[in-house]
Amino acid sequence: MSTTNIKNTSTKILVRRFNPDELALSYNALCNHLYPWDGVVNTPFGAAQCLVEPLQVTDIHNHHEGETFFIMEGEGEITVDGESTPIAAGDVVYFVPFTSHAIRNTSPTQNLLLLTIYWEDMNLSAGIAQKKAQQPIITSKRVWVAPPPVTPNGDLHLGHLSGPYIAADVYVRSLKMQGVEAYYTSGGHDSEGYVLTTAEKLGMTGKELADKASKEVRQTMQKANIHVDYFWRPDKSEEYVKFVHDFFLKLYNKGFIVKKETPSLYCPSCDKLLFQSYIQGECPQCGDESQANSCENCGRSNNHDELKNVHCATCGTKPIERPLEKLYFQVKPFEKQLRAYYRTVKMAPRLHAICEQAILDGLIERPISQVTDWGMTIPLEGFENQRLETWFELAPGQCFYGVGKMAEQAGLDGNWESFWKSPEADVVQFFGFDNGYFYALLFPAIYLAYDADIQLPKVFVNNEFYHLEGSKFSTSRRHVIWGADILKEYSSDVVRFYVSYTRPETDNTNFSKSEFKATLEQELNQQWNQWINEVSERLERQYQGVVPYPGAWSDFHQTFYKDLNNLTKTIKIAYQAETFSPQKVSHSLCEWVRLARRFGKAEAFLATVNSKKDETRTAMALELMAVKQFALLIAPIMPNFGERLWKSLGFQESIFNNTWKSELEFVAGGTKINALPKVVFTADV
Amino acid sequence: MSTTNIKNTSTKILVRRFNPDELALSYNALCNHLYPWDGVVNTPFGAAQCLVEPLQVTDIHNHHEGETFFIMEGEGEITVDGESTPIAAGDVVYFVPFTSHAIRNTSPTQNLLLLTIYWEDMNLSAGIAQKKAQQPIITSKRVWVAPPPVTPNGDLHLGHLSGPYIAADVYVRSLKMQGVEAYYTSGGHDSEGYVLTTAEKLGMTGKELADKASKEVRQTMQKANIHVDYFWRPDKSEEYVKFVHDFFLKLYNKGFIVKKETPSLYCPSCDKLLFQSYIQGECPQCGDESQANSCENCGRSNNHDELKNVHCATCGTKPIERPLEKLYFQVKPFEKQLRAYYRTVKMAPRLHAICEQAILDGLIERPISQVTDWGMTIPLEGFENQRLETWFELAPGQCFYGVGKMAEQAGLDGNWESFWKSPEADVVQFFGFDNGYFYALLFPAIYLAYDADIQLPKVFVNNEFYHLEGSKFSTSRRHVIWGADILKEYSSDVVRFYVSYTRPETDNTNFSKSEFKATLEQELNQQWNQWINEVSERLERQYQGVVPYPGAWSDFHQTFYKDLNNLTKTIKIAYQAETFSPQKVSHSLCEWVRLARRFGKAEAFLATVNSKKDETRTAMALELMAVKQFALLIAPIMPNFGERLWKSLGFQESIFNNTWKSELEFVAGGTKINALPKVVFTADV
Repeated sequence: MSTTNIKNTSTKILVRRFNPDELALSYNALCNHLYPWDGVVNTPFGAAQCLVEPLQVTDIHNHHEGETFFIMEGEGEITVDGESTPIAAGDVVYFVPFTSHAIRNTSPTQNLLLLTIYWEDMNLSAGIAQKKAQQPIITSKRVWVAPPPVTPNGDLHLGHLSGPYIAADVYVRSLKMQGVEAYYTSGGHDSEGYVLTTAEKLGMTGKELADKASKEVRQTMQKANIHVDYFWRPDKSEEYVKFVHDFFLKLYNKGFIVKKETPSLYCPSCDKLLFQSYIQGECPQCGDESQANSCENCGRSNNHDELKNVHCATCGTKPIERPLEKLYFQVKPFEKQLRAYYRTVKMAPRLHAICEQAILDGLIERPISQVTDWGMTIPLEGFENQRLETWFELAPGQCFYGVGKMAEQAGLDGNWESFWKSPEADVVQFFGFDNGYFYALLFPAIYLAYDADIQLPKVFVNNEFYHLEGSKFSTSRRHVIWGADILKEYSSDVVRFYVSYTRPETDNTNFSKSEFKATLEQELNQQWNQWINEVSERLERQYQGVVPYPGAWSDFHQTFYKDLNNLTKTIKIAYQAETFSPQKVSHSLCEWVRLARRFGKAEAFLATVNSKKDETRTAMALELMAVKQFALLIAPIMPNFGERLWKSLGFQESIFNNTWKSELEFVAGGTKINALPKVVFTADV
Repeated sequence: MSTTNIKNTSTKILVRRFNPDELALSYNALCNHLYPWDGVVNTPFGAAQCLVEPLQVTDIHNHHEGETFFIMEGEGEITVDGESTPIAAGDVVYFVPFTSHAIRNTSPTQNLLLLTIYWEDMNLSAGIAQKKAQQPIITSKRVWVAPPPVTPNGDLHLGHLSGPYIAADVYVRSLKMQGVEAYYTSGGHDSEGYVLTTAEKLGMTGKELADKASKEVRQTMQKANIHVDYFWRPDKSEEYVKFVHDFFLKLYNKGFIVKKETPSLYCPSCDKLLFQSYIQGECPQCGDESQANSCENCGRSNNHDELKNVHCATCGTKPIERPLEKLYFQVKPFEKQLRAYYRTVKMAPRLHAICEQAILDGLIERPISQVTDWGMTIPLEGFENQRLETWFELAPGQCFYGVGKMAEQAGLDGNWESFWKSPEADVVQFFGFDNGYFYALLFPAIYLAYDADIQLPKVFVNNEFYHLEGSKFSTSRRHVIWGADILKEYSSDVVRFYVSYTRPETDNTNFSKSEFKATLEQELNQQWNQWINEVSERLERQYQGVVPYPGAWSDFHQTFYKDLNNLTKTIKIAYQAETFSPQKVSHSLCEWVRLARRFGKAEAFLATVNSKKDETRTAMALELMAVKQFALLIAPIMPNFGERLWKSLGFQESIFNNTWKSELEFVAGGTKINALPKVVFTADV
């Protein structure tokens, strides 16, 4: 940090008079920035006078600087990392870097005035940032993992698989490797308008298409080695309908759902009141093409009356407005609770942006009924010809089937509440960013409206889009690779590896067949396969296939051991929900293999020297430790390969009956290993 | 760890009688392995009785298990991590995992008997391994870095550059970034027989070729942006000759050099007494083709009388043995000192193997004179027609010129001893593994013979071979890329990056033109360049090119900041001599860019949301911190690019006037950045 120095100035008297015009809003306080004093002096600290108006509170925030408040006038309350205490004029408060803090003026009449001094100390703040233990957010022994129910207007393509579906299975398997009871629910999102519009094009009924597509989706999931604990469809069973109706009525009776006559869109050419995917227009936020659904470009949820330049998606006619009494869900009453929720729930910046923008846009009320005979009936007089908007059916549907029936089938307590409201259970929701509004804003508001005790998800794991050879997947342009097709040609392990390796996590990524093949060749065959063959060959040649006991340790061994430990940490963090990144896991495992091959080859030179046999056996034991840990860490992504590698190390029990240990472990000395797999990666394994 | 369990056994009385035949030598103690008792019981510990014979000492070693000694009989001395204390019957000693230990029987008559119990506790040992601070070995403020003088029988090709030459320069620059005075000496290894044999083929004199090639080598080094502090040639100056002669005579007078009549090889067809590169044969260790020099396949140093199936390298004739009085250097007297030295010096396992094997082979005496008029004269009567073997001239030559004259020119104390014998200076020697015998065994022995106070190198950094399109570089087969040629086509930065990225560190690596181009395109252009353009574009669009002050920190920021810190640690360790790996540095910097791009793209979504502006400026500040740190970390490998990037961040002073700080630092808020470089990597930059 630079030392204090006085700059050239023409006057000797350096006074800064208080000037109300200089006050600027910063973290919801009116602040007068004092130091560094531009043109006069650079200081090794910053200083400002801040005024918090009566009953106002500053925005809670944290930063890397150390900071102190000198309270000059008034009284209030200070909150640091969730703990609060009263303060008054004369008090001095110190904030440790990265602690979150806010100050509230508790007086209804008097201003609260303070002087703040803040300073940067990178050594201190880096130390604190590093020390803040990377504790996983999800710590319950029972976790419900939910990718979105699939819109059954067709089978899954590679884009779907790369997004939530394989990733959520990888996450579930990683939880199981940590001894967590984890459940994966999927289902058909039948009530989506897309099912109807696609069926009409194919000359089928919505039901026919939904049945056919759901069956294909289940098969594809099975081929992709996705373990689905429960797959549900929104049906007409009495119990289900009653649950959804009761859910609806509770919100209606609380006044969160209101009747309202507003203009609806009518297509004179189709003689139809349009809704959702029947309406084509432009997103009011980004201008991209959008249906009355969420915008696939910016993620904004667009009501039918917000779209620009609308036309009928079926025939292109410009629709006419017709007044219609519809039901609206009020989101605005939940603003405060949502804001509080967003301070704790973990999600990507993209999702934060979508939610924040929706708040800034005023939490627009959402129409939840539409004129159609597709979907769930509405238990209100006068709405016999309308049905519930699909997301409004899905919210209770997730409770009833997704959790309730799933739990029943799994032999758990059948009541969804005892699962989803238990302090010993967690919920992690997976979805594409274009579903962000629904899962991260609408559903929390609906659940809060229904029962404030419902435990909202602690983490949202969202994804961007997967492109195919440089442009969007498109079934209409036949620019698509179907999951079923690629899973015929390649093993599920290989496909799971590659969609993890290239997963669209914070940005769109691309699938290209040539890059896919090149990666399989360069990484899996030339690196992974080679490595395992080399270890196997050395074990056979030097120790006749019998695992040696570790002996003396050289610096070189220590360094390798540390590297394995560090990579293991990195990988485990990348398996945690809030930092979930199968991309990072798979790239780190490629690094793992490179490290291990370098180590193995370097150490092999010592094997020829008789006097180094105690070091050589340590090296071999460490190499096998690396293979063992590699099997454990890759298993969630490549279950078959992980299992094969594990069994080849001489273990009888399945790798999935094991859990990750806090430390790497040796393969027991004396174990006879017949041979590690010769050819590890083939299309049909 | 498994619990104790008794296995099936047919007898009820389980006694193990002492049996001298079962004693086996382990770490130089006679041990009787007791537990686990094979076929009887598995125990969660191992146990053995050990006997150390009178005046014997066990091999010093360390391991990951905890261990305890119960001294049962006799007396002695125990040494743990260099500290010693007497012990006697009745004492109990505990060894913390990974501490090095040995026990000495101090009695000249009585045995020392002990019982050892050892047990594995992976949590404990992993914790200790991780805590053992990765303290750099090289801590002096003055370091002499020496790649081997170049054999001047031709210019440098890409294989040479990939080995010690660029790497040593990278290391020097990394030391300078840590505020260390580091010096790079190079020179011509003129007295090598290869100069003569090549010159004969080209129809030149040795001197003509050596002058021409040395000049080319210096130019190529300059083009590769290798900063050579001093480049020396072994000349005939009076001062130099006197130094080498005095050096020789000191060893001769101490009796380490002896006269001996032994058979020499004579080619009747060439009428010549053959030496070094005039003799072609097969390596007695690996059977590969070798000259009377070190074997390029296994690294063994082969005296002329050790080679199998010898013939004259010039004409192919089988030579005749002729008795000749030659001078021999005795290596054997230094066995104990060398063994002690190898316990502390840091080097790769390959090099350890070469040195250990030479010790096991009995430290064969080395002929150091040959009949020729090429090289340094010998100040002994009767040896007027012989010259010193080249390595024996190089050892004193390094002192006189490599350190002495270099220091004089650098304005340091001109006396080589005050540099190379100072406790405030360190020596790091770089070389290819095929020079391993000379630098890691012969030179230490010679220096120990000359003056025990000479400070031997603390670290040897060696390299394997670089291949070209799958096979060895070969000037005779014209299978070669000359340094001068590739440095005409590509910038020094790009070449330095790629030879670092693919450096043959523990294994042969390969240069392929197509992979080279693909890496430049995929990493440097599509990743690095893109990243810098993206950051630049965001800074311009969001902040009109003015660096924002960091504001509020989200979890996402914290994670990125931690990732940068962790990668910085990894990279700094890969710049340390004992773990030196430009390969790891460059791969980690590729990872750095991927991380930073992911972060930048994810955070860019928040920039559109007004309420998130305090988080958005933190993100931008962190992105620029990442660019700044990246420039500092890449600078040793790519000095020009590092400097350009640094200056573009608004810094006036050269990046090389800066040192790495212990923590990452922000670019100062308020700095106006005109534009980061648009096109970063071009052939001519």
